[in-house]
Amino acid sequence: MASSDQVPFDDRGLAYGDGIFETVLLRDGAPLLWPYHHARLLRGCRVLGIEPPDDAALTATWQASESGLEVLKIVLTRGSGGRGYALPDSPEPRMLSRRMSFSPATSRWQGVDVCLCALRLARQPALAGIKHLNRLENVLARKEWQREDIAEGLLADTDGNLVEATAMNVFWRAGGAFWTPPLEACGVAGTLRAALLERGVVREAPLNVEALLDGASVEQLFVGNSVQGVWPVNTLTTPDGEPLRRFLPALTSPLQAAAHRLLGYSLLSGPPLSGEKC
Amino acid sequence: MASSDQVPFDDRGLAYGDGIFETVLLRDGAPLLWPYHHARLLRGCRVLGIEPPDDAALTATWQASESGLEVLKIVLTRGSGGRGYALPDSPEPRMLSRRMSFSPATSRWQGVDVCLCALRLARQPALAGIKHLNRLENVLARKEWQREDIAEGLLADTDGNLVEATAMNVFWRAGGAFWTPPLEACGVAGTLRAALLERGVVREAPLNVEALLDGASVEQLFVGNSVQGVWPVNTLTTPDGEPLRRFLPALTSPLQAAAHRLLGYSLLSGPPLSGEKC
Repeated sequence: MASSDQVPFDDRGLAYGDGIFETVLLRDGAPLLWPYHHARLLRGCRVLGIEPPDDAALTATWQASESGLEVLKIVLTRGSGGRGYALPDSPEPRMLSRRMSFSPATSRWQGVDVCLCALRLARQPALAGIKHLNRLENVLARKEWQREDIAEGLLADTDGNLVEATAMNVFWRAGGAFWTPPLEACGVAGTLRAALLERGVVREAPLNVEALLDGASVEQLFVGNSVQGVWPVNTLTTPDGEPLRRFLPALTSPLQAAAHRLLGYSLLSGPPLSGEKC
Repeated sequence: MASSDQVPFDDRGLAYGDGIFETVLLRDGAPLLWPYHHARLLRGCRVLGIEPPDDAALTATWQASESGLEVLKIVLTRGSGGRGYALPDSPEPRMLSRRMSFSPATSRWQGVDVCLCALRLARQPALAGIKHLNRLENVLARKEWQREDIAEGLLADTDGNLVEATAMNVFWRAGGAFWTPPLEACGVAGTLRAALLERGVVREAPLNVEALLDGASVEQLFVGNSVQGVWPVNTLTTPDGEPLRRFLPALTSPLQAAAHRLLGYSLLSGPPLSGEKC
């Protein structure tokens, strides 16, 4: 397992996006939701057929981390070599990692506007759920809006099913319960989403984007991930900011409370209290 | 335009596959089919919104090349930076290139066996045709077979349309003419394919994979690209080598003749003649 801050020309992560990554919240040197990150990393290795790093190599990525909040990014590629797409005979995976100090966008915990992206995600069950390095769809979707007042972009698949946001999962409240789309055809299965599913806070259900726009059954909408926490959605807009639909305010949602408890974030939305650690 | 033999951790080509590449045959220091490579590179830049390299930077990639045959690989990424998927304010694309000496697999000009891959390509019109760095589907497909006697793997999309091979385009003869699938939903639009289309040697037509397997209308099948030339297909197999269908021998096909004329390859299939330059 090679480790460095650069990759050479023939690294397959660069050449083909042949690898996976994880983005982990560290609090005072300890990774949050690590069992979920680890499980997704192992699943990504299994799907792609990459030898996973051992626990010692992974643990080393957050050694010497600072107090307070940091974000750790781990990138694992299949390494160098092979003839074209064919795998090398003896692949030597390459792991890179970097830590950055971090502050969540706490004002967004009180509510944000998100847009509905025009790009539709392709349906590829062979790659669904894992956090692989083929992320051009996310890049193109994120390019659709420039307005600072749009916090995220929702993505549906080519069949019109709501899937995720560009860098977050999506949740909604309907009939007094919380839901998130199944990710069998596309999308990244976020670790916060996994933890909320495992605790029964949310359940999986399909939602067509037309039903999201027209239906009264979706009472509240949220986007969230394991780094930023959960943002309630006030207004769904076009990428140009034209309102498509407003949602009920969700300032004190049990979904956000459960999520922020997992991440050690203040249960109250809003700027951190003086002396509070985030 | 930065240029080097490595990319840093934060390069978006590594992080997201946010970039494109070209693989160009050089003969005695001159690129073959360069106008088609250049056009596809420019199209990729337009689709992804990356500032293209200027002609001088591109020409420099094949300066000082050797006599005989080489393959030049050019990789262009969006460069470093940006917040997550969001683009950097002032992207500085990064270009890397490498030349390798090359000999085409001339014995394959006489005919090969190819398999039909189980993986189906996702349909994503927003990325179809360009040679971007998100190539995990090709990697997974290439992983399906290990037998040395299988030269390539055919890929259909999730709707069952024949699209391409893992690293080549696909062509067939039917009704006395040559055809290749349209690439509006997925696949890489190869430069040899583009040159053959422009010359009217092949035309576009859809072909369902069931029709390929069952139909007598497909008389001959070929795979090819701008580096290896054209390989007639003798037998289509499963990834395990079980025969699915045999095709008519195509040793002296006008398709191969036209393709090899474009690449400067011997019109005769088979090992290069003594003293012949390839």
